[in-house]
Amino acid sequence: MTGTPVAAVVAVGSELLTLGRTDTNSPYIAARLQQRGIRVAFTSVVTDELANLTEALSHALSRASLVVCTGGLGPTDDDRTRDAAAAVLGRTLHEDAAVVEAIRARFGRRGLAMPVINRRQALVPAGGLVVPNERGTAPGLWIPADDRAVLLLPGPPREMMPMLEHALDTLVGPRFGVGTAVQRALVIAGRSESWVDEQAQPLYAAWRDEHPPVATTILASAGVVELHLSAHGPDPAALGLRLDAALAALAARFGDDVVNTDGASLEATIGRLLSARGWTVAAAESCTGGLVTARLTDVPGASGWVDRAAVTYSNTAKIADLGVTPELIAAHGAVSEPVAQAMAEGLRARAGVDVTVAVTGIAGPGGGTPDKPVGTVCFAVSGPDGSQVRTVRFAGDRAAIRAFSATAALDLLRRYVVEAAP
Amino acid sequence: MTGTPVAAVVAVGSELLTLGRTDTNSPYIAARLQQRGIRVAFTSVVTDELANLTEALSHALSRASLVVCTGGLGPTDDDRTRDAAAAVLGRTLHEDAAVVEAIRARFGRRGLAMPVINRRQALVPAGGLVVPNERGTAPGLWIPADDRAVLLLPGPPREMMPMLEHALDTLVGPRFGVGTAVQRALVIAGRSESWVDEQAQPLYAAWRDEHPPVATTILASAGVVELHLSAHGPDPAALGLRLDAALAALAARFGDDVVNTDGASLEATIGRLLSARGWTVAAAESCTGGLVTARLTDVPGASGWVDRAAVTYSNTAKIADLGVTPELIAAHGAVSEPVAQAMAEGLRARAGVDVTVAVTGIAGPGGGTPDKPVGTVCFAVSGPDGSQVRTVRFAGDRAAIRAFSATAALDLLRRYVVEAAP
Repeated sequence: MTGTPVAAVVAVGSELLTLGRTDTNSPYIAARLQQRGIRVAFTSVVTDELANLTEALSHALSRASLVVCTGGLGPTDDDRTRDAAAAVLGRTLHEDAAVVEAIRARFGRRGLAMPVINRRQALVPAGGLVVPNERGTAPGLWIPADDRAVLLLPGPPREMMPMLEHALDTLVGPRFGVGTAVQRALVIAGRSESWVDEQAQPLYAAWRDEHPPVATTILASAGVVELHLSAHGPDPAALGLRLDAALAALAARFGDDVVNTDGASLEATIGRLLSARGWTVAAAESCTGGLVTARLTDVPGASGWVDRAAVTYSNTAKIADLGVTPELIAAHGAVSEPVAQAMAEGLRARAGVDVTVAVTGIAGPGGGTPDKPVGTVCFAVSGPDGSQVRTVRFAGDRAAIRAFSATAALDLLRRYVVEAAP
Repeated sequence: MTGTPVAAVVAVGSELLTLGRTDTNSPYIAARLQQRGIRVAFTSVVTDELANLTEALSHALSRASLVVCTGGLGPTDDDRTRDAAAAVLGRTLHEDAAVVEAIRARFGRRGLAMPVINRRQALVPAGGLVVPNERGTAPGLWIPADDRAVLLLPGPPREMMPMLEHALDTLVGPRFGVGTAVQRALVIAGRSESWVDEQAQPLYAAWRDEHPPVATTILASAGVVELHLSAHGPDPAALGLRLDAALAALAARFGDDVVNTDGASLEATIGRLLSARGWTVAAAESCTGGLVTARLTDVPGASGWVDRAAVTYSNTAKIADLGVTPELIAAHGAVSEPVAQAMAEGLRARAGVDVTVAVTGIAGPGGGTPDKPVGTVCFAVSGPDGSQVRTVRFAGDRAAIRAFSATAALDLLRRYVVEAAP
């Protein structure tokens, strides 16, 4: 290994620079390269005019030993990435008979003749290697040049992603001595990103000095925090053991805040827990307006554990559908722990399910009071072990309060199911 | 105006090249520039090491007459954009007393003393102009150089966006003769993106030859299609009239598929329609699992028109909560127009609302049959003018089928309310 290789990523396509057509490939490729220990100097999105594209590739090659390019490998006139790369590297293009046959066979399987223009996709620069594309007609190309290399990949993400992994393992890794990458993920709920980060730092610091180093990333989305661990090197089995130990240390540190250690979503984890116990669930939602149930039913097979939900936005609905008494609402207000508990218990009695979760709160922008400002949300969960209630005050706008409330409701449900006597 | 100016956009920040921290600024800035008639040759995301950043700015200036740079204007050691721009343009930096005072006042309003490191944010290159930042401490900088110019903006989008608009109007426009931009948006539901595009093409083609040209963009998301129109030039009032005429032509072409001509969401439009009639709504959802109601209640003030929803995932819940008879389910299946209609009518009778909408379908991946494959979804709407039913077969995965189904349900509701006798 001769120092850390430096890479540049170029996404090609004039349409990627217009409203609403954001390039997602270059950040993805940059992150995957960095996880392998390849430093990325820059990513760029360039228009597909040949002159502009040629200049961009030439500039990238002057700055990086590895240039990964995505897009512009289609069969039409504005697909010029092959031509630009060949021009910059001073290579001629020749038609590869095996690639022509592969493209022809791909059309044949759909009962179609190969259009003539698709022959362009079989052009390979002298000294280049074809990277097979299992999901489309455009093959990738790997073009080594002195101590540098250019990797051309198609633009559609579902074609590009597996080709990138294949190329990293079989071409980039051996050439630049970066080995393979192994990853793990730990999912945490009910804690802020900054708190999780602070708690994890002492562990991270220790790992940084070890060999191989464990790279860590923290991602947070509406109350769910993910810790991603990765390591790269020549021995995947040893890396796996190293990361499993790191994962176990984090899991011990975060205790029952840990949702799972396999990167699954909070709602999928709840599905597994309910399914294992043979329990069914129902939700009573006010301010979240269906978001809790939408997430519970986002999981394939959810009909096996989700029975129903009552979205009771009005007080009338809370009374009629959940059996909350008008007196209780009058005494405590619709946003209160007693009402949340009555919603959960009322729904459990009516639906005949094992466990229920209820949410009532003030998502704003209107409706706040000095006592109960916007962001005040009350939760309840009810099941065979009785009921639990909780109140949280969330910051942010209506969308943020609703999203964080849905996560908090799901996490309260998760903890109840985990702790319930078997 | 001397030809179309060419721009390059550079987003600065090493963190933008790591997992989960995608840069959203450079695509936004590129789209806004293109809407003004400024061609964008490329965008780039670069690490914040000074040498790399300097090279990136130097390269951008060699390719473009306008370089817009975002990020790296903070007070810390890794905020080097000011230094890099000054170095590339051969300018010295001096501290601007007025900027120091503005930053000090900003801290003062929060009862804080200005940290010493924030003085860095008051450094201005010779010949540079300060672009005020109403929402943060980092001012922007405008640095003209010969026939070119560099615009430096801070990284946080909520600070950057209004500063960009201000700079486009007052600095970029006058210097490059691009005038101001005016925009309109038309929202369509119930039609595919490709169908809408095909219908709009003849109108687009005519506009392209007119002066000033009307630029068009189509955006689609889960069954909602938006047509964005923009024009740029020296006279905003004339542009507005031109776009209003274009909008009227599109609105006439698409008839009652048009949700609105002001760019509001489908659910906000429904809220306005219900509110204007003084109607309340309730939803009965099966396969969408709460998504319809989550969208209806996403609109501030939704408690004024949303009464409740029953998410009846199980047949037991459809029978108990909506009064659907077991015989009807046995005769037609839970996914059928008669059951959708019974759900809508049952909920309307129970909730006492003006209008109800119901969805029942097969989101997959399991549950499909030869007769009713995955993606089959039945809808009903019920109100003072009676009930309407509809069946659609959607393509795609579980998430896509659920999202498109929610839009279709909302659009059926919208059309019913629009058509109802006043």
